[in-house]
Amino acid sequence: MWNVGADMVRWIAAGAGILGTGGGGNPYYGQLHVLQLLRGGAEVRMVDADELPDDALCVSVGGMGAPTIGIEKVRRGDEPLVALRALEAHTGRKAGYLISGEIGGSNALWPLAVAAQTGLAVIDGDGMGRAFPELQQNTFSIYGVRCTPAAIADVKHNVALFDNLADTVTLERYARAVTVQMGGSSGYAFPLMSGRQVKDIAVKRTITLSCQVGRAVSDARRNHEDPVLAILGHTGGEVVFRGKVVDVDRRMVAGFARGRLKLDTLDPGLGTSLEIDLQNEYLIARRDGEVAAVVPDLICLVDQATGQPVTTEIVRYGLRVAVLRVPAPGLLTTPEALRTVGPAAFGYGDTEYRRGEGAYGAERLTAADGGLMAAPG
Amino acid sequence: MWNVGADMVRWIAAGAGILGTGGGGNPYYGQLHVLQLLRGGAEVRMVDADELPDDALCVSVGGMGAPTIGIEKVRRGDEPLVALRALEAHTGRKAGYLISGEIGGSNALWPLAVAAQTGLAVIDGDGMGRAFPELQQNTFSIYGVRCTPAAIADVKHNVALFDNLADTVTLERYARAVTVQMGGSSGYAFPLMSGRQVKDIAVKRTITLSCQVGRAVSDARRNHEDPVLAILGHTGGEVVFRGKVVDVDRRMVAGFARGRLKLDTLDPGLGTSLEIDLQNEYLIARRDGEVAAVVPDLICLVDQATGQPVTTEIVRYGLRVAVLRVPAPGLLTTPEALRTVGPAAFGYGDTEYRRGEGAYGAERLTAADGGLMAAPG
Repeated sequence: MWNVGADMVRWIAAGAGILGTGGGGNPYYGQLHVLQLLRGGAEVRMVDADELPDDALCVSVGGMGAPTIGIEKVRRGDEPLVALRALEAHTGRKAGYLISGEIGGSNALWPLAVAAQTGLAVIDGDGMGRAFPELQQNTFSIYGVRCTPAAIADVKHNVALFDNLADTVTLERYARAVTVQMGGSSGYAFPLMSGRQVKDIAVKRTITLSCQVGRAVSDARRNHEDPVLAILGHTGGEVVFRGKVVDVDRRMVAGFARGRLKLDTLDPGLGTSLEIDLQNEYLIARRDGEVAAVVPDLICLVDQATGQPVTTEIVRYGLRVAVLRVPAPGLLTTPEALRTVGPAAFGYGDTEYRRGEGAYGAERLTAADGGLMAAPG
Repeated sequence: MWNVGADMVRWIAAGAGILGTGGGGNPYYGQLHVLQLLRGGAEVRMVDADELPDDALCVSVGGMGAPTIGIEKVRRGDEPLVALRALEAHTGRKAGYLISGEIGGSNALWPLAVAAQTGLAVIDGDGMGRAFPELQQNTFSIYGVRCTPAAIADVKHNVALFDNLADTVTLERYARAVTVQMGGSSGYAFPLMSGRQVKDIAVKRTITLSCQVGRAVSDARRNHEDPVLAILGHTGGEVVFRGKVVDVDRRMVAGFARGRLKLDTLDPGLGTSLEIDLQNEYLIARRDGEVAAVVPDLICLVDQATGQPVTTEIVRYGLRVAVLRVPAPGLLTTPEALRTVGPAAFGYGDTEYRRGEGAYGAERLTAADGGLMAAPG
């Protein structure tokens, strides 16, 4: 177990913005929130998943909603905490550890905020190793954790609890419908898991990975090196395009940001044009008409010069970006996972997912890698 | 306290169909359901509200959804029971009595079904003295009962609980959104009330009233008398139109059946044409362009020949109907009630509600009126 300091929070936010593949909510507010809590004297403790007692009660906490709403409607900051307390009251059980549902975007930061608010430790891992738009698209659900009881709460502390639901797709529909009525954003607490389950099916050490990615970008910028290559050094994968955003078609549909980007090339060696579909996250990239990257692989847009993530809610005409394909974590590429997070699950049934070159960094890392634990607070 | 027999169930269903002002769900399925439970040996006990202990825990149970869906998607029959049990488990309190949220339509029958399933007694009264489309449009909410905790459940026993909601309008939005996701119908259990609250703010003896209305129609048909006049003998009010349905414009909007009817006259002394707006229930009737009846007064369509209710989900071209205006219960015509159930609350801000001639029968009745208690089982 180790403490998370202020610099680590900034690196985690920067890295999670990249691993969010455009979604998961803008991490900047989450960063400010956690830093504020740290300045107020709170501590954030982190624990490696393999250190968990098998019978520990672990709860995933985070935010639900469209990223486009998240940047306009600032959170109160205790929505997931209120959801967690409602879930505890409903079940009569106290949470022992917190875990992120998705390491991408603001949902990498929410467990840190709730940890600061409660004193509970955060598990170094998550349920996606990236971000996805829907609840059932995480390893917890894919590998059989019951999705309910579940709680969501809004800025006014309105609470909705769900129990005995047939499956996570049902929870996705119900919780999404209430979240839309809550103004498009809510905090959530679910599922409940044992320490054993987390050890078996979470994507591990992804907070450490996002911290390393964020730190690498920071170091590269200070040293006038290419931040894009620094990212790939930790995540594996490749640059599939370098270009300028020339069209953004984005709209709110049923609680999601959906749409399509078009990019013109700045590096003709990588092709002349790229189209990317999005649903909160970037889902598929077609280069000159051919699929260059597709879910569950991560499609990450970063500012060409700074390495800063370009998320679906802030992407706009004129930005010069590098588009990265980062291979998905192994837990997302099994046949059962691909049924939920593969191309067909997103409507791209004519596209076959092939596990690409490179390796997703998270699974090779340990918490002590990279000297991060000694980082200043 | 008295037992409800099979004939009474039929009369209650017939009367509730009329008091439902077109909505509340088709009572026929509810009638079949309660009769089946009685045949299986269950008992339904009814109690006058004034007999309740002040500290009794009373819970309203019923069905939520659009009547048009209710007739196509047959209920499992235990949706409100599952909601009630979930609410009891969530709060740690056991219900003592059941009460209808609205006496109109199937929601008059649901508490009887749950009573048969649980052995709990049903209170002779409800929260509307009619039916209305939205949750906040009942006397419980109007006169200050907290709407949460609240539970809804569907045919698969999926459960959603709501807690700490700001107001009943919020519950209406959240529960309606989940009900739509549940396939357009759900069973509900809320609010929790004390016996004292029920005595103070429920519309009393409305099950007895619907029983009397239903019996009067039955008697009139057997005696070849006018069933329409038999209804008015118990409810007060007047016939505002007799005519043929010549146009039905009805569609599903956001979980509601909405639309407009047009009728041509069969009795020119009462005007030449009538238009009626509906949202699950009939809301306003304009006769030759002038308002002839408007909420909260009851606008009841009954078959001209049989006195059977013509509800919004079964009304169709060619039906010959009498249109009744029945004065609303006094609890719906106070200034605070009219803010929620008056014309302006339904978008008819240019129409003023005037309390009309006649008196709503329910408030003049006692449970022993009309010899109903001795009715054969």
